[in-house]
Amino acid sequence: MNRIPFSEVQQTLAGVLIGLGMAAERAQKCARLFAETTRDGVYTHGINRFPRFVGTIRNGCVDVNAEAARVAGFGALERWDGCKGPGNLNALAAMDRAIALSREHAVGCVTLGNTNHWMRAGTYGWQAAEAGMIGICWTNTMPNLPPWGGLQPVIGNNPVVFAVPRAKGHVVLDMAMSQFSYGSLEGYRKKGEMLPVEGGFDEQGNLTRDPGAIEKSLRPLPVGYWKGSGLSVVLDMIAAMMSLGRATHQLSGDPLYEAGISQMFLAMNPQAFGPSPRAGEIADEIVASLHACKPAKEGSRVRYPGEQTLRVRAENERLGLPVEEPVWATILAM
Amino acid sequence: MNRIPFSEVQQTLAGVLIGLGMAAERAQKCARLFAETTRDGVYTHGINRFPRFVGTIRNGCVDVNAEAARVAGFGALERWDGCKGPGNLNALAAMDRAIALSREHAVGCVTLGNTNHWMRAGTYGWQAAEAGMIGICWTNTMPNLPPWGGLQPVIGNNPVVFAVPRAKGHVVLDMAMSQFSYGSLEGYRKKGEMLPVEGGFDEQGNLTRDPGAIEKSLRPLPVGYWKGSGLSVVLDMIAAMMSLGRATHQLSGDPLYEAGISQMFLAMNPQAFGPSPRAGEIADEIVASLHACKPAKEGSRVRYPGEQTLRVRAENERLGLPVEEPVWATILAM
Repeated sequence: MNRIPFSEVQQTLAGVLIGLGMAAERAQKCARLFAETTRDGVYTHGINRFPRFVGTIRNGCVDVNAEAARVAGFGALERWDGCKGPGNLNALAAMDRAIALSREHAVGCVTLGNTNHWMRAGTYGWQAAEAGMIGICWTNTMPNLPPWGGLQPVIGNNPVVFAVPRAKGHVVLDMAMSQFSYGSLEGYRKKGEMLPVEGGFDEQGNLTRDPGAIEKSLRPLPVGYWKGSGLSVVLDMIAAMMSLGRATHQLSGDPLYEAGISQMFLAMNPQAFGPSPRAGEIADEIVASLHACKPAKEGSRVRYPGEQTLRVRAENERLGLPVEEPVWATILAM
Repeated sequence: MNRIPFSEVQQTLAGVLIGLGMAAERAQKCARLFAETTRDGVYTHGINRFPRFVGTIRNGCVDVNAEAARVAGFGALERWDGCKGPGNLNALAAMDRAIALSREHAVGCVTLGNTNHWMRAGTYGWQAAEAGMIGICWTNTMPNLPPWGGLQPVIGNNPVVFAVPRAKGHVVLDMAMSQFSYGSLEGYRKKGEMLPVEGGFDEQGNLTRDPGAIEKSLRPLPVGYWKGSGLSVVLDMIAAMMSLGRATHQLSGDPLYEAGISQMFLAMNPQAFGPSPRAGEIADEIVASLHACKPAKEGSRVRYPGEQTLRVRAENERLGLPVEEPVWATILAM
């Protein structure tokens, strides 16, 4: 593993995107989002994901210069068409617009159809929180998870984000509907480790902690078994209905062709009725109540969602972004 | 178990409430919500819950004639004070107002502080869907769940609801943040059964399917382990911040004194830009994709959230509401 300064990573990725025809300013913004994702410790969706993103440009799924466009609007709601543009730039624009709507109406909602993978879900939660808004957003995904009671992957792992602005560190939950992603299962298997909790079924239909057995059965578990399965269904349904876009069952199961997906962006203004210092105190008091909880392991501490991000971010800003050498070599050769 | 006609149940409960000083029209509405909850098969929060509800009236937590009142409003958002009124009537009024706001602004949000237990969470999702709106709502609860990595119950099981209107049957997900409620653990233990999946820790800190061991340790599992734990925290934080109401850590751990809680009600209009038959088709197609999924058990079928409710509702409307005799005797003696 190498450490490379943030700005060098951003410039390198931007250079590749410009070479693929993306306008310079957009390329810088798109590259920055990848670099920020690695900086924040979400290594699966940052630099390591960039080669696959380039693959979706090369195969025509992503149109580098297409921009999301407003199709309809009424009150606090707007429907946007992603026009097959880069998923992270589209999502950034959609949340930006939801934030603007929430300044005008206290609540803002943008639905986005015909878009592409937004990479790190949490990005758009941090974006809302940075703007002082509560942000809620989710995406559907290709079919990659069997519903509870089913054998075939007909639902998506549909990540959902809840973000709360807080002066001492935003609270951001970014959770997919699968207990473990395939990337995570592979990681455990390569280390020869069992999962810490049950992560899916084996080929005999028994719940198991064996990552390899789940990779074979293609039956990872939804979060909370029947509960996460149901949540995945309603998130997909709301995103597709509100955007009039595609639902999970209409998407390709090939990650390189996961295109034309549907997303929801909600922003709510906790200061809509004027400055409210009490709102910030409430968040701090909840954090304090978690920190005061007796930990299960001595010397550890219960954390709030997003708490680790700030620590990892600071470390990666100080030391440079951690980069896997084969991935970096691939990117440099692009 | 007895079967009693819906109208007789409603009249009996309303009579008790009138005896406790509740105005007749409110008593009818409150009683109807309890009867509908049992009718829809959520037996834990219908008639069986009524004696405890009466307890919270008698001990002063619930003020039978207090009505929720609008405190502030801006655009699509309003803040309401529950004024310690009956939780189900307050929640019904809040979702009603969110629906009205969504007709005006396409999206509507009502925050409700200082309220009481709303009984069945799903009620307010069905309400939104009946009005043709997508409904999202949640509540915080008393501390009854240890956060991931913690030993003490400092977070709530905070039920959240996602509801989608659909002509052939609304899709309504109603999920608490605990994998099994204490009521459910008790049910398995009394039947001498193990849980179908891991439901918590035993007193030695091992994950277990033994319901009695979890009742002893007071360490039920959040849905999806660390994921549901984080989701519980952000739901509590948003509800308390937006309503400027109480957070879980400030609530009594005694169910009879679980008072002054905080809730969120969101409604979104899927027909905001004019009639959209496509939205309904999208919901139907997703349901069809689930029904077409190969089932894990031969002869069964993957269900969408809320699918069973319609079957149970029809049966209970035909046969009468199932009532446990000791509970009914208690109510008749009130």
